[in-house]
Amino acid sequence: MPFELTILGSSSATPTLNRHPTAQVLNIRERFFLIDCGEGTQTQLTRFKIRHNRISHIFISHLHGDHYLGLMGLLSTMHLQGRTNEIHLFGQPELMDIIELQLRLSQTVLRFNLIFHPVKNYTGAVIHEDEDLVVRTIVLKHRIPCTGFLFREKPKPRKLLINKMRQYNIPFRLFAGIKNGKDYIDDFGNVVPNHELTISAGLPRSYAFCSDTIYDEQMADEVYGVDLLYHEATFMHDMADRAKATYHSTCIEAATVARDANVGKLLIGHFSARYKDLTPLLTEARSVFPQTELAAEGRKFSVLERKEPVGKK
Amino acid sequence: MPFELTILGSSSATPTLNRHPTAQVLNIRERFFLIDCGEGTQTQLTRFKIRHNRISHIFISHLHGDHYLGLMGLLSTMHLQGRTNEIHLFGQPELMDIIELQLRLSQTVLRFNLIFHPVKNYTGAVIHEDEDLVVRTIVLKHRIPCTGFLFREKPKPRKLLINKMRQYNIPFRLFAGIKNGKDYIDDFGNVVPNHELTISAGLPRSYAFCSDTIYDEQMADEVYGVDLLYHEATFMHDMADRAKATYHSTCIEAATVARDANVGKLLIGHFSARYKDLTPLLTEARSVFPQTELAAEGRKFSVLERKEPVGKK
Repeated sequence: MPFELTILGSSSATPTLNRHPTAQVLNIRERFFLIDCGEGTQTQLTRFKIRHNRISHIFISHLHGDHYLGLMGLLSTMHLQGRTNEIHLFGQPELMDIIELQLRLSQTVLRFNLIFHPVKNYTGAVIHEDEDLVVRTIVLKHRIPCTGFLFREKPKPRKLLINKMRQYNIPFRLFAGIKNGKDYIDDFGNVVPNHELTISAGLPRSYAFCSDTIYDEQMADEVYGVDLLYHEATFMHDMADRAKATYHSTCIEAATVARDANVGKLLIGHFSARYKDLTPLLTEARSVFPQTELAAEGRKFSVLERKEPVGKK
Repeated sequence: MPFELTILGSSSATPTLNRHPTAQVLNIRERFFLIDCGEGTQTQLTRFKIRHNRISHIFISHLHGDHYLGLMGLLSTMHLQGRTNEIHLFGQPELMDIIELQLRLSQTVLRFNLIFHPVKNYTGAVIHEDEDLVVRTIVLKHRIPCTGFLFREKPKPRKLLINKMRQYNIPFRLFAGIKNGKDYIDDFGNVVPNHELTISAGLPRSYAFCSDTIYDEQMADEVYGVDLLYHEATFMHDMADRAKATYHSTCIEAATVARDANVGKLLIGHFSARYKDLTPLLTEARSVFPQTELAAEGRKFSVLERKEPVGKK
């Protein structure tokens, strides 16, 4: 089952001809989550062949325009194209004021239900949960209230070894318990341990999205051990002072968080328009954390099912 | 001196990969006027090499998203790039509520002065005037309040024929009067008529922008004789019912207005996303008004200086 991130936008506040403001789509087991929605996101979705209608949940990190100005246009297009499936929207409480004002002035009554969930401004708040997944907030340190999001699969039932079920003649009614880790005890009291009867269905996979933030060493604890970490890296480290003044991070700082958090892979993005060539940013980040990639537009990053935790944990 | 329109966007509400929502730039004698500002306008300006900083006035026709959702991002980029020159913004009164809410929530205090001019919802209201130009409203019939804009140069002083000034030994102090049409009377009472001393500096040029509107035969009077008319043509005429129901126009209707108004040239735009190839729309419009062009992205249309009115007036 997929756990795949597609990058739609990689620029910081000022877009360039090749880089759009922040937007990403996370496909978890064929559920599509849109994360941030900068200007032009609806066209980027079309460009990378992700149908609007597949998106069920939208998460907006904060109310700087480069993270949400594409939202109104996307909702409007969904409306015009006849969408009826509800949308869940997560963001700062005032986000809904902006949406409602614009809907009212355009005299638009959406054909679908837009269900708004204001986020809590503390780390670890559960803002979404379904049968497969939990999403929690990660509070970031930025100029205005800003939250990242931690997507984590729930632990999955173990997979039964069918030949073992047959060998021990285990009744069907016990399968659910064995999937959840129980041993099998036959009528004579013989115990067959669970690990002989099942294999792991894979560890829960996880993605942490940390958009605009100043470097914060505490963040390594908050995203510890995730498979995939997106951390903004607006500047190279020679501009560390500018990063600090604008509540942004450098490539070295993003990579330091990734290293200290012992993550599987780091993606850097939110690049300043001053950088035409992004190679030096990648090189700089990799000097601290080699498993770094550029969150460049159109790139996809999959987290594969795996049996063992990443890194040294 | 230029009088040149550049098309930045040609789509109706739903953009496509090749067509962006409405935006145009009108260069009148090196003053740059932005007309509507759909999502992605700032990138379109970059693509067609028009620097943000040259824009001094922005006109927004109405509060459907495809006509203004790029405005907040453009203002934000101007701010981040250090603009200090003031901007004059024209639109429905509530436009400023949207801007102010978004500025407040992003805690942005613009570095430049944004001077807002709410438009009047009647035709012919003078909303801007400078030494060269007058801009008036054209009220359109749409689902929500919507105004087009009529840009018209002021009459220009005639050009002196320098050899005639010398031949009649005309004193410098009389030049201004002769430029404004006076005859020359010498010390003996001989009259030299103005047309012997001057030539026309060209007739005032004009551009009428008629964005979203249902077909309205009265509009031909309101834009009578303009050099260049932009009139939306969302649909082909087989969808006239749909056009009417959505307060839009067909190619035949746009061309009928142009023909009845005896304009120099018609530009059609605001094309529905259903049309991949625009040739049939152009052909249909030209069947009524041959001097029609597609307002396609990146195209430029110049109105040349001329001595005689267009058409049969």
